[in-house]
Amino acid sequence: MFKTVGIHAQEINDSTTTVIKKIVKTAGQFDCKFLFALKSISFLESNSRVFPSTPEEMAQKSDLVISVGGDGTLLKCARLIYPRNVALMGINLGRLGFLTDIAPERISDELVQILEGNFLEEERTVLECEVFRAGKSIMKGDALNDVVIQKWNSPRLITLSTYVNEKFLHSQRSDGLIITTPTGSTAYALSGGGPILQPSLKALALVPICPHTLTNRPIVINDSSSIEVHLTSDRDDTSRVTCDANTVADLLPKDIVKIKTCDRRIRLVHPAYHDHFKTLRAKLNWGQSPC
Amino acid sequence: MFKTVGIHAQEINDSTTTVIKKIVKTAGQFDCKFLFALKSISFLESNSRVFPSTPEEMAQKSDLVISVGGDGTLLKCARLIYPRNVALMGINLGRLGFLTDIAPERISDELVQILEGNFLEEERTVLECEVFRAGKSIMKGDALNDVVIQKWNSPRLITLSTYVNEKFLHSQRSDGLIITTPTGSTAYALSGGGPILQPSLKALALVPICPHTLTNRPIVINDSSSIEVHLTSDRDDTSRVTCDANTVADLLPKDIVKIKTCDRRIRLVHPAYHDHFKTLRAKLNWGQSPC
Amino acid sequence: MFKTVGIHAQEINDSTTTVIKKIVKTAGQFDCKFLFALKSISFLESNSRVFPSTPEEMAQKSDLVISVGGDGTLLKCARLIYPRNVALMGINLGRLGFLTDIAPERISDELVQILEGNFLEEERTVLECEVFRAGKSIMKGDALNDVVIQKWNSPRLITLSTYVNEKFLHSQRSDGLIITTPTGSTAYALSGGGPILQPSLKALALVPICPHTLTNRPIVINDSSSIEVHLTSDRDDTSRVTCDANTVADLLPKDIVKIKTCDRRIRLVHPAYHDHFKTLRAKLNWGQSPC
Amino acid sequence: MFKTVGIHAQEINDSTTTVIKKIVKTAGQFDCKFLFALKSISFLESNSRVFPSTPEEMAQKSDLVISVGGDGTLLKCARLIYPRNVALMGINLGRLGFLTDIAPERISDELVQILEGNFLEEERTVLECEVFRAGKSIMKGDALNDVVIQKWNSPRLITLSTYVNEKFLHSQRSDGLIITTPTGSTAYALSGGGPILQPSLKALALVPICPHTLTNRPIVINDSSSIEVHLTSDRDDTSRVTCDANTVADLLPKDIVKIKTCDRRIRLVHPAYHDHFKTLRAKLNWGQSPC
Repeated sequence: MFKTVGIHAQEINDSTTTVIKKIVKTAGQFDCKFLFALKSISFLESNSRVFPSTPEEMAQKSDLVISVGGDGTLLKCARLIYPRNVALMGINLGRLGFLTDIAPERISDELVQILEGNFLEEERTVLECEVFRAGKSIMKGDALNDVVIQKWNSPRLITLSTYVNEKFLHSQRSDGLIITTPTGSTAYALSGGGPILQPSLKALALVPICPHTLTNRPIVINDSSSIEVHLTSDRDDTSRVTCDANTVADLLPKDIVKIKTCDRRIRLVHPAYHDHFKTLRAKLNWGQSPC
Repeated sequence: MFKTVGIHAQEINDSTTTVIKKIVKTAGQFDCKFLFALKSISFLESNSRVFPSTPEEMAQKSDLVISVGGDGTLLKCARLIYPRNVALMGINLGRLGFLTDIAPERISDELVQILEGNFLEEERTVLECEVFRAGKSIMKGDALNDVVIQKWNSPRLITLSTYVNEKFLHSQRSDGLIITTPTGSTAYALSGGGPILQPSLKALALVPICPHTLTNRPIVINDSSSIEVHLTSDRDDTSRVTCDANTVADLLPKDIVKIKTCDRRIRLVHPAYHDHFKTLRAKLNWGQSPC
Repeated sequence: MFKTVGIHAQEINDSTTTVIKKIVKTAGQFDCKFLFALKSISFLESNSRVFPSTPEEMAQKSDLVISVGGDGTLLKCARLIYPRNVALMGINLGRLGFLTDIAPERISDELVQILEGNFLEEERTVLECEVFRAGKSIMKGDALNDVVIQKWNSPRLITLSTYVNEKFLHSQRSDGLIITTPTGSTAYALSGGGPILQPSLKALALVPICPHTLTNRPIVINDSSSIEVHLTSDRDDTSRVTCDANTVADLLPKDIVKIKTCDRRIRLVHPAYHDHFKTLRAKLNWGQSPC
Repeated sequence: MFKTVGIHAQEINDSTTTVIKKIVKTAGQFDCKFLFALKSISFLESNSRVFPSTPEEMAQKSDLVISVGGDGTLLKCARLIYPRNVALMGINLGRLGFLTDIAPERISDELVQILEGNFLEEERTVLECEVFRAGKSIMKGDALNDVVIQKWNSPRLITLSTYVNEKFLHSQRSDGLIITTPTGSTAYALSGGGPILQPSLKALALVPICPHTLTNRPIVINDSSSIEVHLTSDRDDTSRVTCDANTVADLLPKDIVKIKTCDRRIRLVHPAYHDHFKTLRAKLNWGQSPC
């Protein structure tokens, strides 16, 4: 099933090397070879199945990429391998993750199951954003969680007008606007008061950030929609667009940010017993009553 | 296109008779006949195209049903004609409606356009709910807006456990739970703090009503999901399930309410220029800033 | 300091008798006598300091009343002894309470401290509500938590107009309105989305319950304000006013509910180390981050 | 009553000169003289009662200061004259203001009333904030609306711990925290989801900005409280403290911001008919129902 396994980590430390050694040992029982886009893989004993690699090569040649870290590491890894149609799974080295659900102490068991084909695969939507200035594209970005247009370097609100499929939706004076995938609905959009979206839902949510009005409510739209956010503020250099918290561009008045769903999705691999609602309960403390 | 037009109104008064006369006059130019499920149609001059009818017959034989009244009238009409696959449109006699978008003074123009085939058609999801007691189905209901399980006749909270596709989602102590379609997302679910859902979205939202906890957040799920709400309160006669605000059943402890989307949807007919976002803005005061 | 101690419990069971025996044993070392408004005190060994009593006598003659149970028991006890200016403390037999903060296993230690005068006393606001029909007072009630006007026996919204110090505040279509003391701000008002009020704050919050509008926001006002809620619904028998979840009256259209703060407050006695913020954190899970 | 009237405007343009001329003409009927802290007052005809001035002199010698502009102008004027105990009133040149309630076309009538002593005076709380680094005070600021600690120049959340009267309240990962007076409760705190506070309430609200948690709720505390916010983020230069949207200081990890109410309050003068609830209704669209 998975013949070539890429391994991604943001840093080499005791935790990640322990995990990576376990992965190699376990998967060594299968007919797999390994690609590592790491600075150094000298901590691995010489092994005829293990090859150093570049991120690009790893993305191109792997059937499965394993991210070792937390949700943030998996987000970075996802952007790395996208748009190659590689399966992706996460070993979780932090607290329980929304995306990375395999605990380090269970790697061996889980990985055997997954390499034997006993797993759950789900697709996650990816957003593509492009910034236009005076009609010309000046910058692009991808996001698995969210595209955020936000005030920057200023205590003042910004003003935005939002269009969906070229129809005017609303304008607002706010700290910004979050356009979130279902994956991102538990990230910044949750802080902004947005609803939880089931991961498989073909939908996006538009969540205003602190608009100065009572008439605020998130809206959930089809993920086939094209979204345009027009900067109608008249002050320079007071807003920015980010993808998964990475800067795409500083925005000027009259800039337009276009957002749409990419054709390709991220293929996330989970253990067969994966239960997203259980993760939600554990992380959101749902069902806990104060008295 | 539409050969047989049913006309529905909740009461016969000056406003409705004026509107109905206009409809008959306008559609008389086309090759249409009319069915009226009204107590009396004597206010209409004798007309060889006009026939009294029962609601059942009207639902069965019409190609298009016109509801004359407000959103509430259209909701009742929709339940009447459902599950016959009839097109439905609403003349709005109240304030601007979310569902009924043709103003009485524009009937003639709009109706000509619609009968000439120049219109917008959209499908709206219908929910089906069934109450089970000790394993047996005891009651059923349909809803275009929402199924609501709510405390009844009591100031005390009820306790519920919710399952989606047989997986446990969460439990809560609350005043109840709203399961809403996109159509209902601007009705009671809006009061409960739920997100706005685009009408065409294939999604349902679960919106708790005043849960006694801070860890509350609406969740939006695929509308192909099957939902079960288990009454875990141990007091008798303190909750009720309603469909579009109509009582389905009083609930006892251990009762289970199952909710799913019906296979058939309601076909709503709008003028070609229909713009749902414009209605949202007008009704929700979106974009209005306090200073 | 406290010479006569009243003891209140809602039922006599293993837990409460154990606690009551500990109280009598501990306070027996001090020059105290005890009044019990319980059906039977035969579980107590004959003791020259222990006297059966009525609730009225207990309220009148005690310097300190100890409530044995949970927050609900203390609320009932408070209404019993109000408006006698008795100090009140709660032994908590349920989960951690907002009001009852002495754990059963620490009774002996805490009670010695308190009887030696080493305690914290705080005053809690009490609300008084009176229902007027056609200009005449028809019913009264007291509340330590909240006065709630709510829809009853109906899925339909009610319409209310609210006046503060005879000035019109707002009207709403909603499931009802909560007028809460700081004490009640962690009870039903919390479910309705109201702010937490510091217990000593001389303020009340008005918290709408599921109003059908986006322009909803709780307002916090001086607790010297007089509040009037006018029932403007035109349907009979669809709303009710409750005090601390106890029914005061069913409301008819045009009824007026007047609410104001009582002159007397409830004197709550806490251990010297009492920390309300700590209780809030423990009960509200403040500061817990999902990732 | 008011013998010396200071006049404040942010710019001299057609609107402000028209208003100022009306003020001088109207108040000329009374025994008043005028101080102007404006660059040029040449637009006023020579008048023995009119004197140019500095802002400091105007603040010191006036009995009444009239702010000509919007709420923002009045906020600036208030900081200018604070802590001199001068009465302050606002002529509103923008949209209806929360603070400035005299329309330009009604100046003559209103001003006569006010100068005849027929007015309403209310006191508004002022906050004082001081930033401590390694135990030393490095910066101070005053605020009539709010003190805001917010992320700056970064898409990342900051972490804060808040103490009230030296007791730990809560910690959070968020975009920041708003400490608002009742005056500021309709400004940025409203965007953050905070409650409306009646202007005369002796209270402050702490409103987290987009905390990444569901367990978020504003808390309202006595305005005699001392508040400390500890920056517990470990990244440099990612947060800032502002007073009424003016920068006080960039914050470093371990910085402490101390906030308390000033002894002196701002004295706001309103027409006798002033009705704050009416302003709230007009600006917040309270009581407007979507259907």
